Amino acid sequence: MAIQKPSIPKGTRDFGQKEMARRNYIFDTIRSVFRTYGYQQIETPAMENLSTLLGKYGEEGDKLLFRILNSGDAFAGIDPDKPVVPQICEKGLRYDLTVPFARYVVQHQSDISFPFKRFQIQPVWRADRPQKGRYREFYQCDVDVIGSTSQVNELELVEMVDAVFGKLGVRVGIHINNRKVLTGFAEIAGAPDKVVDITVAIDKLDKIGLEKVKEEMADKGIAAGGIAVIEQILSLSGSFQEKLAAMRALFEGGSASGICSETGLKGLAELEELFGLIETALVQAPVEMDLSLARGLNYYTGAIFEVKALDWEIGSICGGGRYDNLTGIFGLPGLSGVGISFGADRIYDVLVGLDLFPASLAESTTLLFAVMGADELRYVIPVAKALREQGVAVEVYPEPAKLKKQFDYADKKNIPFISINGSTEMEAGTVNIKNLSSGEQKAFSATDMAAILAFLN
Amino acid sequence: MAIQKPSIPKGTRDFGQKEMARRNYIFDTIRSVFRTYGYQQIETPAMENLSTLLGKYGEEGDKLLFRILNSGDAFAGIDPDKPVVPQICEKGLRYDLTVPFARYVVQHQSDISFPFKRFQIQPVWRADRPQKGRYREFYQCDVDVIGSTSQVNELELVEMVDAVFGKLGVRVGIHINNRKVLTGFAEIAGAPDKVVDITVAIDKLDKIGLEKVKEEMADKGIAAGGIAVIEQILSLSGSFQEKLAAMRALFEGGSASGICSETGLKGLAELEELFGLIETALVQAPVEMDLSLARGLNYYTGAIFEVKALDWEIGSICGGGRYDNLTGIFGLPGLSGVGISFGADRIYDVLVGLDLFPASLAESTTLLFAVMGADELRYVIPVAKALREQGVAVEVYPEPAKLKKQFDYADKKNIPFISINGSTEMEAGTVNIKNLSSGEQKAFSATDMAAILAFLN
Repeated sequence: MAIQKPSIPKGTRDFGQKEMARRNYIFDTIRSVFRTYGYQQIETPAMENLSTLLGKYGEEGDKLLFRILNSGDAFAGIDPDKPVVPQICEKGLRYDLTVPFARYVVQHQSDISFPFKRFQIQPVWRADRPQKGRYREFYQCDVDVIGSTSQVNELELVEMVDAVFGKLGVRVGIHINNRKVLTGFAEIAGAPDKVVDITVAIDKLDKIGLEKVKEEMADKGIAAGGIAVIEQILSLSGSFQEKLAAMRALFEGGSASGICSETGLKGLAELEELFGLIETALVQAPVEMDLSLARGLNYYTGAIFEVKALDWEIGSICGGGRYDNLTGIFGLPGLSGVGISFGADRIYDVLVGLDLFPASLAESTTLLFAVMGADELRYVIPVAKALREQGVAVEVYPEPAKLKKQFDYADKKNIPFISINGSTEMEAGTVNIKNLSSGEQKAFSATDMAAILAFLN
Repeated sequence: MAIQKPSIPKGTRDFGQKEMARRNYIFDTIRSVFRTYGYQQIETPAMENLSTLLGKYGEEGDKLLFRILNSGDAFAGIDPDKPVVPQICEKGLRYDLTVPFARYVVQHQSDISFPFKRFQIQPVWRADRPQKGRYREFYQCDVDVIGSTSQVNELELVEMVDAVFGKLGVRVGIHINNRKVLTGFAEIAGAPDKVVDITVAIDKLDKIGLEKVKEEMADKGIAAGGIAVIEQILSLSGSFQEKLAAMRALFEGGSASGICSETGLKGLAELEELFGLIETALVQAPVEMDLSLARGLNYYTGAIFEVKALDWEIGSICGGGRYDNLTGIFGLPGLSGVGISFGADRIYDVLVGLDLFPASLAESTTLLFAVMGADELRYVIPVAKALREQGVAVEVYPEPAKLKKQFDYADKKNIPFISINGSTEMEAGTVNIKNLSSGEQKAFSATDMAAILAFLN
């Protein structure tokens, strides 16, 4: 067979030891926090039926699904008068963790105790055009609770964000909005179908100024009366409580249009309750109401979250919100849920950028027994084993080799201690261990694990 | 949109909290042992180029690959005079972890320090017919070292098997064979192309008796002189050392055929060295030479391993061997490696069968704060947070609800402690915690974490 130059599909990655240690550090940190809040891990298959996936991510999303050719003779018995692809592909790769989660909840509803708190850390696949920071295979890290409308759930998500980034040492800001408030704005502006346009306008005020925003609104087909209301919204200022009071007045009919919005008032009540709970819970990260936050607007029905690193420019590293009918499409209506997703790749980049990975992650092995001959090799094998039983990562160089080669091996693998033994040590029943960075060297009884452990720590 | 009854593709599985806790226990145990031996974790993409995968698993294996439809318009510009599938599918799902590992080593050879000790725990996909215990998606858990021919590597694999199953509490037997010895048998039987037939014959002696074995050999086209040699091999008995000596005599020309086998002698030397090292390392599990072990015969070139549970009938739970030219097909010849693979699904079944999973895995959350009203809810939030910071898994029931409902929730989630507080506790600044199995109940100062932790442990 011809020799192949090996490569991997574009947009995919290999992870070596160093990246794995760092990625595991992130995932383990996140997982440990999720667990203290009683969230349970689940896993779903990489492949889902296309009937589960199609139509859930919009037309664009459907195009980005990786489809799997039916096994066996995929083309056997296909009807030439019908589209081919649906006949030859019944399965696709998971596009996100949300739809499989909804499918899971419906499929296993009789085994689940609600409220169901789950987390899931698995790769997803998207046939997106690969570019810097955008991959075709990447991990998502989702935490959701379904079956409770209480704002305590929103609070716990905020607490978990606070705890995770606290442990990772990353200063973050948490931005919160509420979809019902945005809906309320559109309602009192007399343009209930223009939620997105209005939110985008609110977001642009700082950049382009009031006049340009008003022009843009007019271009979007919002009537003069509506634009007057938007101007009132854009002029909101003051403390959180002052803004809340001003918005309440607008929603109660006090805006230029005189229209009331029950939905807007409901959104304000949710925001107020959530911010009160956040205060009770002594959340460390700054949390702010951000009326321009429009993330996943077609999807979320209540709280909307976004988290940004304060000391590193990279966009959102975490986000989510409340959705009211995720499981409806699979036949289980009326379940409200709220969740957030941690962006592992961006968090990785932030930790690299701010140099926040613990130095210990770079070490794979603590001690290398260099080997000069067959007798020395046999001599150190039981010592290595005893140390491993104490949890120390130990390597025995597998064959006698030049010391230079063995030192190089230790150096390349970042191994901080080396042990070189010969007939002197064997006769004395000792092992000789050297700290490669300090140069300190000591002999130990080969059975005195406590002393060796103390030297290695 | 029509409501869909949700399902997953046949041969795939969802894993709920209980299964995840158990699977993580197995993987964490295996991982912790691998780490103490200096093995480094890597991950490769789920999708590989089909050019990497095809032709590596035999004709049958090629058919079992899951192929991924090219994204975009897969049928655009295809040549109708050529086979369609290779034109519409360039990628496939990983079929095992061995070929991606070989690809990885070649692709990253300049970054790797050899001997390269790696492990990899990831799912693989095979379009096999699903049946009990056989899935289309399952995890493999492989550990390999590449770039060293020393038998110390074989020893370390045996030590790791011993340590993993020791930690899991499963008594196992480790069976070892050597491909070179089997080749030697075929050589001295004058039938160097009949290695598999001869190995199968050796395996059948106990079941069908000598005469039937000889008949079968004749049917397989082995000449009378060769059968006489096989009879000599089948009559091998005695201790390991006695068998070794007898085989050495056969390979040195002392068999009925008078043929010598250098390869056979090399295999014996390897076996002898490995068993000597195993003795030095004080391996606890029984290790035996098993000349009938024919696992992966087309593939392995030296040691062959198989591990069986002694107290549960399920077949091999772990296996592997040495291969000499894994990376050759990708352009890096001459690297010898040895590895084993742990069968996670079977190990899971053994642990269930022998009831060896720790009881603590069944608990997800330690303490539930039941909630009777909004004030009590706010009262317990900071207490819950303080306990979580100590690493305790705590849930706060997210909204006031009937106590019966909250107790049911605790019961279904196996939560062992519940805390119910009202105005009395709020005024006193205490929390009241009940051990649901013993019935013991105690009040604690809401800030005395040490006392609460002691009660929960």
